[in-house]
Amino acid sequence: MPNLAKEHCSACHRAAAPLTSEQIAPLLPALSKWQIVERGGIMQLQRSFMFRNFAQALDFTHRVGELAESQGHHPAITTEWGQVTVTWWTHKIRGLHRNDFIMAARTDEVVHANV
Amino acid sequence: MPNLAKEHCSACHRAAAPLTSEQIAPLLPALSKWQIVERGGIMQLQRSFMFRNFAQALDFTHRVGELAESQGHHPAITTEWGQVTVTWWTHKIRGLHRNDFIMAARTDEVVHANV
Repeated sequence: MPNLAKEHCSACHRAAAPLTSEQIAPLLPALSKWQIVERGGIMQLQRSFMFRNFAQALDFTHRVGELAESQGHHPAITTEWGQVTVTWWTHKIRGLHRNDFIMAARTDEVVHANV
Repeated sequence: MPNLAKEHCSACHRAAAPLTSEQIAPLLPALSKWQIVERGGIMQLQRSFMFRNFAQALDFTHRVGELAESQGHHPAITTEWGQVTVTWWTHKIRGLHRNDFIMAARTDEVVHANV
């Protein structure tokens, strides 16, 4: 199983093709709590994280945001009372790049650091 | 037009009825950039705010979160690169309470303080 959390995002060019199902399959076992969702024809990688209150959820959002800034790759983060939903995809290619799987694995590390 | 931003949230009991269209109508002129949306049968008040980058969006999210904590009433906040979407509704009554309109007006004040 690849250790995605140890990888860094690579430059993604507009001409790059989104990953195929065959390319995605070996990456999923490392991300068992993430789901592939499709929104407006774009495949995305999504997970909801649960928290005890709003303040903890907001703190997690802040730390995922800092991770995103550090890598120059940004998710959609929905913050609610006791829950944060993080969605990764690559706007440029309107789909999933290996970078999204790396960032999902790194997001899991942020929440583990939280507990 | 009521000055909603000057009001504070009142305690909302589970037995309270969501506002009717007739009760909502006079509150909307003060919130011209907000939309009433319906999701899963629940009426919600929603606005997207645009920013120059992710960092500014995340900062706004943090400040709306602090406002929410101060009032004990919490929205869903979706943070993306250059955009934050804030959605207010009252979970207890599965609809819109006057508190949601007050918080929408106060959210507008947060963004004005940002510019």
